[in-house]
Amino acid sequence: MSSCEISPVLVVGAGLVGASIGRALEQAGVQVHLHDIDRAHAMVAASRGAGTVDEPAPDDVRLVVVATPPASAAQAVLDALARYPRAAVTDVASVKASVQHAVVAGTTEAIRYVGSHPMAGSQHVGPLTAIPELFVDRTWVLAPRPDNPAWVLDRVRALIATCHAQLVELDAAEHDAAVARVSHLPQLMSSLTAARLVGAPADQLRLAGQGVRDVTRIAASDPALWQQIIDGNRDEVLVQLRAVQADLDALVERLECPGAVADLVGRGRAGTQALPGKHGRTAAELVAIVVEIPDAPGALARLFADIEACGVNIEDLSIEHDQVREVGYLAIQIEPDRAEALGEALVARRWSLRV
Amino acid sequence: MSSCEISPVLVVGAGLVGASIGRALEQAGVQVHLHDIDRAHAMVAASRGAGTVDEPAPDDVRLVVVATPPASAAQAVLDALARYPRAAVTDVASVKASVQHAVVAGTTEAIRYVGSHPMAGSQHVGPLTAIPELFVDRTWVLAPRPDNPAWVLDRVRALIATCHAQLVELDAAEHDAAVARVSHLPQLMSSLTAARLVGAPADQLRLAGQGVRDVTRIAASDPALWQQIIDGNRDEVLVQLRAVQADLDALVERLECPGAVADLVGRGRAGTQALPGKHGRTAAELVAIVVEIPDAPGALARLFADIEACGVNIEDLSIEHDQVREVGYLAIQIEPDRAEALGEALVARRWSLRV
Repeated sequence: MSSCEISPVLVVGAGLVGASIGRALEQAGVQVHLHDIDRAHAMVAASRGAGTVDEPAPDDVRLVVVATPPASAAQAVLDALARYPRAAVTDVASVKASVQHAVVAGTTEAIRYVGSHPMAGSQHVGPLTAIPELFVDRTWVLAPRPDNPAWVLDRVRALIATCHAQLVELDAAEHDAAVARVSHLPQLMSSLTAARLVGAPADQLRLAGQGVRDVTRIAASDPALWQQIIDGNRDEVLVQLRAVQADLDALVERLECPGAVADLVGRGRAGTQALPGKHGRTAAELVAIVVEIPDAPGALARLFADIEACGVNIEDLSIEHDQVREVGYLAIQIEPDRAEALGEALVARRWSLRV
Repeated sequence: MSSCEISPVLVVGAGLVGASIGRALEQAGVQVHLHDIDRAHAMVAASRGAGTVDEPAPDDVRLVVVATPPASAAQAVLDALARYPRAAVTDVASVKASVQHAVVAGTTEAIRYVGSHPMAGSQHVGPLTAIPELFVDRTWVLAPRPDNPAWVLDRVRALIATCHAQLVELDAAEHDAAVARVSHLPQLMSSLTAARLVGAPADQLRLAGQGVRDVTRIAASDPALWQQIIDGNRDEVLVQLRAVQADLDALVERLECPGAVADLVGRGRAGTQALPGKHGRTAAELVAIVVEIPDAPGALARLFADIEACGVNIEDLSIEHDQVREVGYLAIQIEPDRAEALGEALVARRWSLRV
């Protein structure tokens, strides 16, 4: 289905996500109508190229995208199903099971509704920060139910494709367990860390570097929005919070035991390596070519030039040491499918590799 | 004191920080000698322009910079004080009181030692990632003691100036309390969050977005290094961990109470606003100009063009709503010293401001 076949679209809720969807659709030639209970938000979104504000929207909308805060998503979906009897309806709330239950319980028209969730956003809110590229290459979850007709799923898939996002299909419960771990827990940990900065002496805050800024970036998020998100996913969030509570209690308890900190930091490092990298590959799946470090000035610069000449991307680098032979080695992490060719090329250029 | 007056410098420990200091000094014309117990590291640092490897270093070094892991910093300082009787000696370990106590207890020459700590680094380690710009505009703490002679302090201040860092003088205990809050706690919170990703189903990890990546970036750090850092600052770290423990326990306990999440996220947001911004000013110190949002297409684009024409940087933007008059307002956050001029310029261009 092409993007034209979903036109016209009604976007309900002109915040960051709704206005960004509007801009992405308008850019692709789809006609977008905007509605927001706060008309100023819709006006700002329209002035940023996210669609037009004409109330009520025409009867022939083919797709309604509900982009309201999560607490009002289910009611907005029910309203849209009643008002537009031939439209497919989706929402973009960051919790899925609770919205789905409320919609299924509230209407016999629920087969025209399918939940979705674009994994994109920002600590900023409102239409001013909307950009059409917000969803490019981001994961956008679709949570189909067995009774959804194909035409409903197709229209929402076309929306996702038009926003250039990556479609992932998961059922609502799986989605909610996943976001508790990779989104809701990180948000609360960021907030817990940032809460410790309140009232700190200015002399202490002057020592803040990039690390604390990264950890606390999303702590600048909207408190009311996060209350709604966690309310909609409380059971799964509790599972994650209790696991962290156990780890933290153990850390405090064992802080004087040798290796307790290294154990936790090591587990955290393994966790970061489990995250998919830029090509969907995890760091653990890279392989290393190990080259002896030559004892001569300028030799390393030549080594890097030789690697570059092979057209291989270095994903990571580390130095290893051989206590027995008293020499150093450079471990070059690269994608596995390039390892053999690079190894052969380096040997041909007289570098010593460790086997 | 100019950078030339500290030449030659001996850098002990050719990891990321030591090799970056070497590169910054060499770039400024200072002669740098490198030493590392792992000669391969020193060789790599030298090949990256961080100095020369000639052992032992000449007797006339004027400044020794100890950039070893924190657990060996005190011994390396004691060795340097004994070996170079006319040199000033500093270290760059991320804890200060424990190193200082060990040095003062270990020699009568401790007046030539003053601890310091550049607030720069990365989750990467080793000389391969060293860059001379690592310290530019970063805070570099100097922790003077009353018995340090002026010439010792001057040489370390010259080092800091040559690396283009911002000098902050704090005593060792104040420093350690500060880094427990703004560095060590964020590291452990990042690790606790990332530890929850270990063993997670791949379907869940595919939903990871920028938020969890930011929160867990520093969790990729070296476990052995962090064991040493926390060992050197255990009491202050415990204060921070216990405070977080109390907040987390309260959150789990009260998760079903209305407003509990918003309360925590709100405190976190206030914490992020307390961090100094790019000009050392906190977000709380900005002021807002509030403009009525006009009900006409294209008007906002004209407003932004008018603001830009005044040469004012917009630091943040938000939309406000007036329930009574049913109009929207744009709140434009700017530096306070530009508020009056911008307000007058916008009125002159016929924009309606809220008073």
